[in-house]
Amino acid sequence: MRRSARLAAMTKILVDRPNRIVSLSEFVERFGAAKSTVSEDLAIIRDVFAKEGLGRIETLTGAAGGVRYVPLPTAQEIAAVVEELCAELASPERILPGGFLYISDLVSSPWLTYRVGEIFAAHFHAKAPDAVVTLETRGIPIALMTARALDVPLAIVRRVNRVTEGTVVTTNYVSGSAKRIETMSLSRRALSPGMKVVIIDDFMKAGGSARGLVDLVGEFGAEVAGIGVLVETAEPRQKLVGEYVSLAVLETVDVERRCVKVRPSHWVTQRV
Amino acid sequence: MRRSARLAAMTKILVDRPNRIVSLSEFVERFGAAKSTVSEDLAIIRDVFAKEGLGRIETLTGAAGGVRYVPLPTAQEIAAVVEELCAELASPERILPGGFLYISDLVSSPWLTYRVGEIFAAHFHAKAPDAVVTLETRGIPIALMTARALDVPLAIVRRVNRVTEGTVVTTNYVSGSAKRIETMSLSRRALSPGMKVVIIDDFMKAGGSARGLVDLVGEFGAEVAGIGVLVETAEPRQKLVGEYVSLAVLETVDVERRCVKVRPSHWVTQRV
Repeated sequence: MRRSARLAAMTKILVDRPNRIVSLSEFVERFGAAKSTVSEDLAIIRDVFAKEGLGRIETLTGAAGGVRYVPLPTAQEIAAVVEELCAELASPERILPGGFLYISDLVSSPWLTYRVGEIFAAHFHAKAPDAVVTLETRGIPIALMTARALDVPLAIVRRVNRVTEGTVVTTNYVSGSAKRIETMSLSRRALSPGMKVVIIDDFMKAGGSARGLVDLVGEFGAEVAGIGVLVETAEPRQKLVGEYVSLAVLETVDVERRCVKVRPSHWVTQRV
Repeated sequence: MRRSARLAAMTKILVDRPNRIVSLSEFVERFGAAKSTVSEDLAIIRDVFAKEGLGRIETLTGAAGGVRYVPLPTAQEIAAVVEELCAELASPERILPGGFLYISDLVSSPWLTYRVGEIFAAHFHAKAPDAVVTLETRGIPIALMTARALDVPLAIVRRVNRVTEGTVVTTNYVSGSAKRIETMSLSRRALSPGMKVVIIDDFMKAGGSARGLVDLVGEFGAEVAGIGVLVETAEPRQKLVGEYVSLAVLETVDVERRCVKVRPSHWVTQRV
């Protein structure tokens, strides 16, 4: 096989499953090339990915060694995704009675959630999380894409107790500014003590459900390595959780004037 | 830039977003290569993808022309995914009281759902669907990955009516063999008349929820192009929907003997 063809095939295999380590011998066997040739191939992929901002190709030495692809969106890409998100959110057609916004299409958009997942994965990658946790329903697509980019399992916390979850741990939490008491449950099997988890959700107002997720993760003896939300509201300023990362800040929804004010978060603007 | 480096970069760009058409001029501009050179590059990628079973590279001519990557798992890959799924499902530790099976970890596994999504996308690709529809909660990951592989939006049908969905269409359905009446709702904004949709779900027993989804899609004036489920039960044999594709068939769950019988579906075994 010609080098150019082999490079295309190797790139596909690496990109298909981010963060999975592929041993060099896997490539050696599959393509019938010498180990030194495969190493040269990987150096070419690594260099062009770095130059073109396509992600990081990491070589790991040792017994469990090999190579892996780590998604690494550039600052420009992050800004572009968030700009697109803000433009969508600002559309007055999204305004619902009561000042709510229709965002179901955005939070389930495969291409948007794919890129958002890579942004969160790149941000939390250094913490080496063991799992991603989210609360059903709207957080699931972003959380799944984050878990995919990190190559870790996803645990979905349920709002209702389903028989198919087996033994669950249930906790109550105060839902946002509405001050309603709500319940969330997670299967006993979903997390183990000592795990490091990243919490991902679509929306944060007061942070009540994020607080509930933090407490629930604590009940499993697991540790919260970070919290990522797609959109937070500017008010209340003081959230019920401490450190978290958001991509966009919803400032006001003016139902009368049919006007939505939304901006990229400081976390995003700082990096451009 | 050397051809080998350019091929790695082009492969990454194509694989990142399946089914999106990239115009040749996009590559010409980005890499400063002649159009004929880019065409030669794409022919190399196309050939090695075909030879190595890595998917199909399609060239489309005309005004909206360009090139796209279409995921196309090989029969061997499909068999391997389903074998892995069946082995997981057959684990006696999954048995829950009442003969239910714990499958939440499987249906939210990023790597499993990614591959299952590609299998369903490849199967329904010829129908050129405009959207994927699923019922919350456990069907969402597989449905999202199918939508990603097809590059179409995902519409999530809710079991509860949420204020953030705006105006919804609600229908009642008879839940499986339990014969309970349940409700499902979908936002008016989620589908348009004339759309062709694929319904994806994790589990089918009697087919009550799939029947409900078919009826709901019909209420929007949209057309069901196909139904895909991860696991179906062998009984009842007669489902409430006609044509559908499943990957695995759950035959029996013997709670006393702690034994689960599960096999690949005929659709899978036929293609190997």
